[in-house]
Amino acid sequence: MNRNTVLAEHRDGIALITMNRPEKRNAFNDQQYDDLRAALTDARDDDAIKAVVLTGASGAFSGGQDLSEMVTQRSHDDDQPHGFVPFIDCLSTFDKPLIAAVNGVGVGIGLTMLLHCDIVYIARSARLRAPFVSLGLVPEAASSYLLQAIVGPQRAADLLYTNAWIDADRAVALRLAAGVYDDADLLPAAMRKAEEIAEQPLASLRRTKQTLLAVHADAVTAARRREDAAMAAAIGGPANIEAIRAFREKRAPDFRGM
Amino acid sequence: MNRNTVLAEHRDGIALITMNRPEKRNAFNDQQYDDLRAALTDARDDDAIKAVVLTGASGAFSGGQDLSEMVTQRSHDDDQPHGFVPFIDCLSTFDKPLIAAVNGVGVGIGLTMLLHCDIVYIARSARLRAPFVSLGLVPEAASSYLLQAIVGPQRAADLLYTNAWIDADRAVALRLAAGVYDDADLLPAAMRKAEEIAEQPLASLRRTKQTLLAVHADAVTAARRREDAAMAAAIGGPANIEAIRAFREKRAPDFRGM
Amino acid sequence: MNRNTVLAEHRDGIALITMNRPEKRNAFNDQQYDDLRAALTDARDDDAIKAVVLTGASGAFSGGQDLSEMVTQRSHDDDQPHGFVPFIDCLSTFDKPLIAAVNGVGVGIGLTMLLHCDIVYIARSARLRAPFVSLGLVPEAASSYLLQAIVGPQRAADLLYTNAWIDADRAVALRLAAGVYDDADLLPAAMRKAEEIAEQPLASLRRTKQTLLAVHADAVTAARRREDAAMAAAIGGPANIEAIRAFREKRAPDFRGM
Repeated sequence: MNRNTVLAEHRDGIALITMNRPEKRNAFNDQQYDDLRAALTDARDDDAIKAVVLTGASGAFSGGQDLSEMVTQRSHDDDQPHGFVPFIDCLSTFDKPLIAAVNGVGVGIGLTMLLHCDIVYIARSARLRAPFVSLGLVPEAASSYLLQAIVGPQRAADLLYTNAWIDADRAVALRLAAGVYDDADLLPAAMRKAEEIAEQPLASLRRTKQTLLAVHADAVTAARRREDAAMAAAIGGPANIEAIRAFREKRAPDFRGM
Repeated sequence: MNRNTVLAEHRDGIALITMNRPEKRNAFNDQQYDDLRAALTDARDDDAIKAVVLTGASGAFSGGQDLSEMVTQRSHDDDQPHGFVPFIDCLSTFDKPLIAAVNGVGVGIGLTMLLHCDIVYIARSARLRAPFVSLGLVPEAASSYLLQAIVGPQRAADLLYTNAWIDADRAVALRLAAGVYDDADLLPAAMRKAEEIAEQPLASLRRTKQTLLAVHADAVTAARRREDAAMAAAIGGPANIEAIRAFREKRAPDFRGM
Repeated sequence: MNRNTVLAEHRDGIALITMNRPEKRNAFNDQQYDDLRAALTDARDDDAIKAVVLTGASGAFSGGQDLSEMVTQRSHDDDQPHGFVPFIDCLSTFDKPLIAAVNGVGVGIGLTMLLHCDIVYIARSARLRAPFVSLGLVPEAASSYLLQAIVGPQRAADLLYTNAWIDADRAVALRLAAGVYDDADLLPAAMRKAEEIAEQPLASLRRTKQTLLAVHADAVTAARRREDAAMAAAIGGPANIEAIRAFREKRAPDFRGM
């Protein structure tokens, strides 16, 4: 069940899904969004699967949006939806238990996708970052709502206003993650939790998750709509242009006067 | 003011209400739901009462729904509402400060009723459990909403997806409880807190609690409606039948293939 | 940019706003509400300002509503709105990062205004209190909603039902504050955080805060409306009269029978 950028294995009631674009630290291009969405859809539709573990190959979770593909959107030769939006549609309504095993870096969407997971375990060496303002952008993937719901309004603001790294212990203290594990123990711990969940009956797990998701559904939709509007206003603005230029020139951006 | 299954004492502005069905670890049958609702209503309507302490007799808080009465609902010879639904109606709109002193076990409704209390103290030896999926069922009593509001979305999912015991220290870490006390100190601590509250004026306490409850009222109602629909679909299904059979046969349920 | 009761300094992208009514521990009369609102509006409208630090002069943050001016509302010789309501309108929609440096006491509105700030740092010697019920009143400034959102429903109830002081360490444990600092380090720490934020582009900071605020806007409005109705019913009632009398007579109030 492997795809171009995502590996998937269904065994003993558990789907193990691995983002696998190691040369880019599993940064998302449209292909990876589509492949990960397809893997999640497979896991959702396979009645033998009761829990999903999501991780990244080669020492990274996800480096975020692939900035090198951000300005030159790939064209598609079909009429299907592609990329970020349908991926978040899928993730935010995924109605089986979803466990993230965060190894290496989780940046941007590599962080905000965790807010849609049920249980997040993080490797001791891993670190997270929400770089939106430092890219001249705004939060996405309903993170303006979910980050507040998970870590609290004030800690959410603090995380979003700067570009600071969040290490594993701080991720747990913030309740972005439920537990920190030595790097070698991370995936085994996530799999053990998935096995524990997979002993339960699927229909009850699914109905339980549906009742949990339903609490947030309207707020998630509204947050995404507001974020989309703010993002449309921000992309291509002076700060975003300076951020992309600085990224290409491998220097810190200079937002003085912006 | 004692009833068949619930003891109640009104003194010095405080109502002490004790679930008292010790041979069943204070598990709820319709009688106990009705008796506890009546005791809460008395406390609410007594203008001398400023705070309520709720606890369980004989070393248990509540073992949850009495499964032996779950499949054979007792008939009532009147037209009044009975049992779970009007009890939750009463609890979720109770507009005086409500303090729980959790001794022994709090399982199922013995846990989810705590989410409607203002202050929860727990005995060092006590432990909690949300066994809904392992019974082939789903969360109830607005817990799909309140548990997320209190412990956070991700910790709530973790608690609901398995059948694990939560000990007293973990209950405090999760913010399910405000403090842990040695077993002998539990009720005295809850009473001291009630006395501190009872020094305040009733009208202000009541209006304050009403403003707190109002924040959640719509979400609680919506969550209960969704849970009721999910529960109706789950009861009598294969997993629920297997869980009840396993309970009667004193063995672990086997949900393989479900 | 100083005013009668509030000092303000705009420098290097940061507005430092200091409540300055030291003879009253910066308790709010209409003048201070209006002056602080004007200072916030200046900071919001100055495109050179990316972050705001709010603190109090002379070893106090704010002692709350000035009770000596509570019963004799000052008349105004214009048709403009004055005092508490337009101040909260301004604070609850303030769309630049707002950092509070809490020194000394934060009582009543001196506590509830913190719930509208993004990042709260507290001095080791500082302490907070929500005295509403002990004044025969109810929560205000949307605190019936925001306090629950920030510290959780049960801790919020506990804080509101009594008149207990909250020290700095407890404020951090409750997540009312993000960090505690030695008194002399408090303002420097808040300024360093503001400087870190001020390196980011203003448009992104502002849009980010707008998406964060929008999550709560309807709930804040609804909470204020309910609180206003409850406050109107409480002011001038027996408990409120006893509380004001006890305050003037420098004794503890006696709410027996109320």
